[in-house]
Amino acid sequence: MTISEETINNILRSWPVGVLSTYGREKIHSVPITFVVYQTLIYSPIDGKPKSGRTLQRVVDLGCDDRFTLLLQHYDTDWRALWWLRVSGHAEVITADDLPVPLLDAIVASLRAKYVQYENTVVLDDPGQLLRLRAFDATAWAFSGPEWLAQRFA
Amino acid sequence: MTISEETINNILRSWPVGVLSTYGREKIHSVPITFVVYQTLIYSPIDGKPKSGRTLQRVVDLGCDDRFTLLLQHYDTDWRALWWLRVSGHAEVITADDLPVPLLDAIVASLRAKYVQYENTVVLDDPGQLLRLRAFDATAWAFSGPEWLAQRFA
Repeated sequence: MTISEETINNILRSWPVGVLSTYGREKIHSVPITFVVYQTLIYSPIDGKPKSGRTLQRVVDLGCDDRFTLLLQHYDTDWRALWWLRVSGHAEVITADDLPVPLLDAIVASLRAKYVQYENTVVLDDPGQLLRLRAFDATAWAFSGPEWLAQRFA
Repeated sequence: MTISEETINNILRSWPVGVLSTYGREKIHSVPITFVVYQTLIYSPIDGKPKSGRTLQRVVDLGCDDRFTLLLQHYDTDWRALWWLRVSGHAEVITADDLPVPLLDAIVASLRAKYVQYENTVVLDDPGQLLRLRAFDATAWAFSGPEWLAQRFA
């Protein structure tokens, strides 16, 4: 199914959640993430939502193998409204200190603009890590076809 | 986060969609699936929703490496209602002919009971393939903690 780059970007910019999958040591690790697109990259903060306390698996995994797959999808009881978007590429774990302050500020502002919930949840939990995802390919599917998806995210 | 087996089963039985991830040749492949739990296994049909026409990637992948990860998750603008459930294990691709007729009938009946949408969509598309998933571990998380999740899926 051929989906235009414009539609893919519109989905990535507006959809609030994706399932990030990374190469765990013995199995694939999948976890939902929040994210923003800034310029041509995707940034996902290690934020203040409750965590296990250990180093996060996604951080460990990407340190060993930087390949990721991110799936955005919508389920609906009306199956004609089903769609998904899959993005794969390479990711790195960075800390706030790695970024020029204006860039970091812009990313955090984008996250706050996309998620009002960051009013009550810390955007960057100590020690201020983010995932920076570089997408190399994207594939999308919609039950009702590419034109329907383009309309839905026009 | 320790979630009881009962809660895990309740989620698996009632939630309509999961993101299945498999080992692609060069990257992780993720795709949303429908599924039912029957006895102690998870069955996901290759159904009549529009497809690419090629052999499905999930079928190719599981033939080379049978490990899977399945993530069920709920996103909500109220983050206190966020949760996810991750199940990993081994999967095989089977055809309807591999199953005793009463078992196949029971699985298809379970799928029709869970998804009214199968009134208008073929449950098992030609040649009648299903994925049979054997879960070896399950982990769950909820923003508001395990008791909240247990209540939500009581």
